[in-house]
Amino acid sequence: MADEGAPRRVVVVGTGLIGTSIALVLRARGAEVLLADRDRAALELAVGLGAGTELPGGDGPPPGGPADVAVLAVPPAAVAVTLLDAQKRGLARVYTDVASVKALPLRQAAELGCDPASFVAGHPLAGRERSGPAAARDDLFLGRPWALCPTPQTAPDAVAAVEALARTCGAEPVVVEADEHDRAVALVSHAPHVVSAAVAARLTGADDTALGLAGQGVRDVTRIAASDPRLWIGILSANAAPVADVLESVATDLAVAASLLRDGSEGAAGHVADLLLRGNAGRSRIPGKHGGPGQAFATVTVVIPDRPGELAMIFQAAGIAGVNIEDVTIEHSPGRPLGVLEIAVQPEAAETLAAELRARGWSVPG
Amino acid sequence: MADEGAPRRVVVVGTGLIGTSIALVLRARGAEVLLADRDRAALELAVGLGAGTELPGGDGPPPGGPADVAVLAVPPAAVAVTLLDAQKRGLARVYTDVASVKALPLRQAAELGCDPASFVAGHPLAGRERSGPAAARDDLFLGRPWALCPTPQTAPDAVAAVEALARTCGAEPVVVEADEHDRAVALVSHAPHVVSAAVAARLTGADDTALGLAGQGVRDVTRIAASDPRLWIGILSANAAPVADVLESVATDLAVAASLLRDGSEGAAGHVADLLLRGNAGRSRIPGKHGGPGQAFATVTVVIPDRPGELAMIFQAAGIAGVNIEDVTIEHSPGRPLGVLEIAVQPEAAETLAAELRARGWSVPG
Repeated sequence: MADEGAPRRVVVVGTGLIGTSIALVLRARGAEVLLADRDRAALELAVGLGAGTELPGGDGPPPGGPADVAVLAVPPAAVAVTLLDAQKRGLARVYTDVASVKALPLRQAAELGCDPASFVAGHPLAGRERSGPAAARDDLFLGRPWALCPTPQTAPDAVAAVEALARTCGAEPVVVEADEHDRAVALVSHAPHVVSAAVAARLTGADDTALGLAGQGVRDVTRIAASDPRLWIGILSANAAPVADVLESVATDLAVAASLLRDGSEGAAGHVADLLLRGNAGRSRIPGKHGGPGQAFATVTVVIPDRPGELAMIFQAAGIAGVNIEDVTIEHSPGRPLGVLEIAVQPEAAETLAAELRARGWSVPG
Repeated sequence: MADEGAPRRVVVVGTGLIGTSIALVLRARGAEVLLADRDRAALELAVGLGAGTELPGGDGPPPGGPADVAVLAVPPAAVAVTLLDAQKRGLARVYTDVASVKALPLRQAAELGCDPASFVAGHPLAGRERSGPAAARDDLFLGRPWALCPTPQTAPDAVAAVEALARTCGAEPVVVEADEHDRAVALVSHAPHVVSAAVAARLTGADDTALGLAGQGVRDVTRIAASDPRLWIGILSANAAPVADVLESVATDLAVAASLLRDGSEGAAGHVADLLLRGNAGRSRIPGKHGGPGQAFATVTVVIPDRPGELAMIFQAAGIAGVNIEDVTIEHSPGRPLGVLEIAVQPEAAETLAAELRARGWSVPG
């Protein structure tokens, strides 16, 4: 089923993280992939990674005729001009892009006179803090949403072809109107990115004592502040109004919270508590990691000697007990020969696993 | 060494997450622990968990005389009055608290006329999204900083006793002035908490399509927004001015970024990029997970069937290869029988592990 309508010949223009990752999946599925990038080093690295062969230059279609799909994996502001050029050459029968914003490329493509029937604006919701072809992975899209924003002018066949491409990559196609998409990603991706940067920016002036008191909370809040500013300024600029709307609301909430805290009255504290309660409510609306409704795993905690082979014995015990491990985190103890392992399992399996591990001599608190 | 000067008899007033966790460690080290809590159910649960025995009521010291240390694990606003009562009873020779703010309890203790010599204000930098005695764990403090804020009136012996308590819990004592502590935690904990809540609060009005596009970034930014508002409003109120300072700076940065994005000029975009660059710089200043300088592990990625026993075989292979695993993350693929395992190891061990796993038939990209 996943391979029904899967593209057999694909052009990928732009061999960064997303373009190269798509190419790697398609190659693994046996498709022919032709690669192009203005950055010669990026192109050669992608070819070297086995993502495909170089698209010959020139004005016409590739040897063998137009590909099934051309994926334009270029920054948002470059999508329309790249599309125009690709359509002039006749690179493929269907075109799609992967930019994180959708209204701007569609508007610019219309202004440039691109063919609207063969273009399906797209956005795989996948990424990493790292960028470039070296960070590409063929599992990048597994289980992730892949937004498609066809317009009334888009040919249904073109939509079907890009849906098949998304499914081939292991993603779930989600058809959504471009403006709605842009407001949504402003809310769940672009604005949080700027907020994370603003919190992290406060740390530049902190002394080492303050930073030494940093716990997991601020690490989580600022993780995405480590991303590439060049990449992100392009995204933010292309989705400026929806992002600004969200940032203004957050800025207002924070300024009001600051003023209420300075007020110091019990009533003022109550209003700050309201913001925290709204935070609880908003957080609980995010679907679970696996795309479905939030799944509550149970956690089994084990204190383990920090040495080779210990994890193997624990996971072996889990396997013998027939318990599937859903997730694992390890917390090491600096300067101690002990680590703490948290094993997430289905709730009904937690007691089985804990009993098995205790029976084998591990320390399982609780 | 870790047990040098370790307390033998301890009173814990307040059997929530932190108090019960301290009690559990001390019991495990063979200390006698006497527990008190106004909440009868919390007290009984802590006793049931083996955290100690109930402190008899009354006006005098516990049977057997004053304990070595009394830990006042109560909310920030309750520390001073609890300290006064405890000192009147003569519960212990040395007193400490665990509240997330330090200037307010010290000021209130002075106002109430508490004995300043025997009180060492303290704050273990440890916590969980869950609260209450049921969430307590004896590994909660392993490797975490434990701030101590003695004043010029504090007796050196008292400081030494609380340092020994912190070390017994596996934590690293950090002596810091109370105002500096409060500004530091406003920056690295309290303000990020409010910011996380403000981002999450925006999601309450979002539609399901928008939430379906949520990725790991917004999940990380809003994780701590799931914490208990009652607990946090007490912390924020007790550290109001330092938190308000940080929130105002962040709010200003966000309002300016919004205005620059609406401006749309290249110069304006450059200023937004500056904020992202400052975010990069601030993020990179957070010390590594283990408290030391950021440690760069190498990651080995393996695609694995999602079934019991598979992890055991992988970790067994790592053990045979003599490779110690520093961290593990598992990414499942919804609706697919595959998971992706990322194994963090010392950089020099990455190639050894990858080769071992490939030789045993696993798919190790890169």
